[in-house]
Amino acid sequence: MQSPSIKINNSSKKRLVSGIKPTGRIHVGNYFGAIRQFISMQDEYEAFIFIPNLHALTENVLTKEQLTEHTKNAVLDYLAAGLDPEKAVFFKQSDVLAHANLAWVFDCLVSVPYLMRAHAYKDAEAKNKEISAGTFTYPVLMAADILLYDASIVPVGQDQKQHVEYARDIAGKFNHQFGEQFVVPEHLILEDVAVVPGVDGRKMSKSYSNTIPLFGTDEEITKAVMSVTTDSRARDEEKDPESIILYQIHKLFNTSEELKSQYSKGLGYGDAKKMLIADIITFVAPMRERRKYYEDNPKLVQEILINGAMRANDVAMKKLFDVYEAVGLTS
Amino acid sequence: MQSPSIKINNSSKKRLVSGIKPTGRIHVGNYFGAIRQFISMQDEYEAFIFIPNLHALTENVLTKEQLTEHTKNAVLDYLAAGLDPEKAVFFKQSDVLAHANLAWVFDCLVSVPYLMRAHAYKDAEAKNKEISAGTFTYPVLMAADILLYDASIVPVGQDQKQHVEYARDIAGKFNHQFGEQFVVPEHLILEDVAVVPGVDGRKMSKSYSNTIPLFGTDEEITKAVMSVTTDSRARDEEKDPESIILYQIHKLFNTSEELKSQYSKGLGYGDAKKMLIADIITFVAPMRERRKYYEDNPKLVQEILINGAMRANDVAMKKLFDVYEAVGLTS
Repeated sequence: MQSPSIKINNSSKKRLVSGIKPTGRIHVGNYFGAIRQFISMQDEYEAFIFIPNLHALTENVLTKEQLTEHTKNAVLDYLAAGLDPEKAVFFKQSDVLAHANLAWVFDCLVSVPYLMRAHAYKDAEAKNKEISAGTFTYPVLMAADILLYDASIVPVGQDQKQHVEYARDIAGKFNHQFGEQFVVPEHLILEDVAVVPGVDGRKMSKSYSNTIPLFGTDEEITKAVMSVTTDSRARDEEKDPESIILYQIHKLFNTSEELKSQYSKGLGYGDAKKMLIADIITFVAPMRERRKYYEDNPKLVQEILINGAMRANDVAMKKLFDVYEAVGLTS
Repeated sequence: MQSPSIKINNSSKKRLVSGIKPTGRIHVGNYFGAIRQFISMQDEYEAFIFIPNLHALTENVLTKEQLTEHTKNAVLDYLAAGLDPEKAVFFKQSDVLAHANLAWVFDCLVSVPYLMRAHAYKDAEAKNKEISAGTFTYPVLMAADILLYDASIVPVGQDQKQHVEYARDIAGKFNHQFGEQFVVPEHLILEDVAVVPGVDGRKMSKSYSNTIPLFGTDEEITKAVMSVTTDSRARDEEKDPESIILYQIHKLFNTSEELKSQYSKGLGYGDAKKMLIADIITFVAPMRERRKYYEDNPKLVQEILINGAMRANDVAMKKLFDVYEAVGLTS
């Protein structure tokens, strides 16, 4: 697995591991709510960022084509949004065979009742839903994802704290029984820094169909912005700009005091929308360009992922070997 | 993983997969009851024989030292008993990372209630025992062990038929959903060809402490044979040799009509025991020698297992890649 061209970051930065859930096309709300902060972590931490495509199999609902498409889009979106594969180790989970192997070792360490206490299992049980063995044991695979890299930091949403708890439990249990092997990770709650309103004023969310696509065409962006709800206050009435939905979106792309003052002093909504469209297009232009560049160069994307997989394997295989040695599998 | 020195058997022989459970030192009963027949299958089939050391972790009761020792002994015992690493592909499960990865794909295909119907789970539930997630999902890993190699034959004991049923179910389910990928295997029931009596006349079994060790010292063999139960019939009374425990054991090592006739015509039990000791020692001498040879050459044993792992990986990695492609993990 080793190659002379692999550079391992020996920096003193804390190590971070995170999986990117491919949840479909990125919109302005995702970007300003979380992705931008997420990507900025590649500077502060030694980041291992992976596409959790093994996890994507758990409920066995995606076709081959869907999973392929989701994976491709997630890779392109994150590269376009600024994930730097020179800084972060960016790879697909399925390219590192150690994840499932470490998960197996952990499966043998945890009990069935312990896994039955996981949210996902309890939710399914409450709904009388037959879950797969993959869904049942996925907290264990997730623990392996994290512990394989000795991550000390795992950024998670408020609802995913339990995943890190499982990883902490399992690390503690293994270390106690077989000797210190794993770093016990801490979670880092990723708050939505900005609640971005959608075109109808509610929180921008795919489930409300009120999104502005981040990588849409000019036409798609124009259409979305034109549909932003406006109020019926008179144009020349002095307004608090923060009370204007359009401004709440606009300020993400243009933070100038001048714009703010224009909104407060009676900028017509029609003109404002035209300005917002122009500002969005200016803002996303370099990202769109990057996305198109990568999209047109699939070989380059492949190289990035292979390089990421090699760097990840270099760390993961060493750890797996140490674990195998500790439990008596090498001999 | 590929190397120019790897030769893959392209014979038209049916392929067989089997794991050797390391259950402690081999005795005469194991050998004549099952191992001899098992080893002879390496001629009839293209055999993949592995030490299931990942399975050995399931109940998390072995120390590193115990698992290491068990593994080492199983390898030495089977090589000594005649497993030919030039014929069979002989490897350790932990050296082939594809097993756990294919098991994960299968975990996502089967439901928790389906696994709850497995004997091991039901037994544990009946005993109110907390089983590990590894024990719970081990039928899935076992299915992966088998299906990874497109085995058409899986030799099993009568009580292990369910394992092959699980593998058949899973192969069928995968093939149906993602296209033909796996050979649906058949079980081959390994009957104990000979019920070998122990020194007390009951079936020879570790649990009865009535065994004659196959690789014991001369002293151990002598002690065991000297303790074989004899009856009080007069020496010169004509007897059916098959009614004499000593002969039931003796005929395994010496099938001559002359011996049989000696037993029927009044061979003294003391003399018979001396002859049996000599016959056992003659019989096991080449095996013992082989065992000592391998024991004294740990590097050679390591090479055998590495070569086996390379041959196994060659088949397993190709299959895993095909599976990953079929479900959408390569892209």
